[in-house]
Amino acid sequence: MARWEPNARERLVRASVDLFTEQGYEATTVTQIADRAGGLTKTTFFRHFPDKREVLFAGQETHVRLLTDGIAAAPAAATPLEAVGTALDALTDSFTDDRRDLGARLTVLIAANTELQERSVYKSTVLAAAMAQGLRKRDVPERTANLAAEIGMAAFNEAFTHWADPADRRALREHAREALDGMRAAVAELG
Amino acid sequence: MARWEPNARERLVRASVDLFTEQGYEATTVTQIADRAGGLTKTTFFRHFPDKREVLFAGQETHVRLLTDGIAAAPAAATPLEAVGTALDALTDSFTDDRRDLGARLTVLIAANTELQERSVYKSTVLAAAMAQGLRKRDVPERTANLAAEIGMAAFNEAFTHWADPADRRALREHAREALDGMRAAVAELG
Repeated sequence: MARWEPNARERLVRASVDLFTEQGYEATTVTQIADRAGGLTKTTFFRHFPDKREVLFAGQETHVRLLTDGIAAAPAAATPLEAVGTALDALTDSFTDDRRDLGARLTVLIAANTELQERSVYKSTVLAAAMAQGLRKRDVPERTANLAAEIGMAAFNEAFTHWADPADRRALREHAREALDGMRAAVAELG
Repeated sequence: MARWEPNARERLVRASVDLFTEQGYEATTVTQIADRAGGLTKTTFFRHFPDKREVLFAGQETHVRLLTDGIAAAPAAATPLEAVGTALDALTDSFTDDRRDLGARLTVLIAANTELQERSVYKSTVLAAAMAQGLRKRDVPERTANLAAEIGMAAFNEAFTHWADPADRRALREHAREALDGMRAAVAELG
């Protein structure tokens, strides 16, 4: 990235969330976002994101990598759900407390717009697919790998909802561990 | 619907799949679809669908109803996954063999387009949510209901892929039952 635009990506994310919140997602243009991000240009915007929607899902690639590395880093003897737990620890640790407010506002924006909901659900399937692929590399059978990965994403999404409450004080990792334990109980109930 | 446009909805679906296959999803207009459907108008199109994308997901409302009714119709003593099985029977029976070819072409179209994949994944979450809601009405705890519903949709999607192979000769119901049994084994493995 060009040296004279420090932290442009993060500034574009925050400007987008600000503008979408103030004036609505549909009504906001890329030019307005670039301008609000401290006088950046449309060209700079498009160097970072293909369109305004993708700004809200900027973390997807990083999250895929954290989950993939997390699954690979689990001990050889870990069960599929234990490996998923290791991956969720790695993912959730990247959501530091100074991002809680951003998460809360993102949740509100997505809930208000079907297009964003579709994209959000799609992101979950991409992250689940990354975990499932990592589990298959550990010789977990396909259906079991897919199910464990879906369970992991369900736990993450449940945890995120709790964490993105401005009144909440716990780390996302703690919420995710609790939710994953809850999912284990659900698995036992169905078994 | 107006009496002079018999079966317009189904004709629009088939015309859409034909045109999307021949000339691509992006390149096809609503006017072309209406015309190909036997001289219908854009106005008629918009009486049935909000846009060209939704034509490919025309069944969603019906499928929600079939699953909801299926869950409700399961015996009182049915386990959550047994109730899901009843719902899948009801849903899959609506995919008669004369629709297999349409299903195959739809699968190819969706696989080729990210926007359609997002919509397709979203449809799965809507159907899963309908089953989960039905299960909660049967006093199944929330996480267990959500997990059973996700498992049901995973089984359905796996079954659909097999059924939508033009060389396949089995009913979708059979594929779905087999896939659901496979998912039960995966649950046992994780438990």
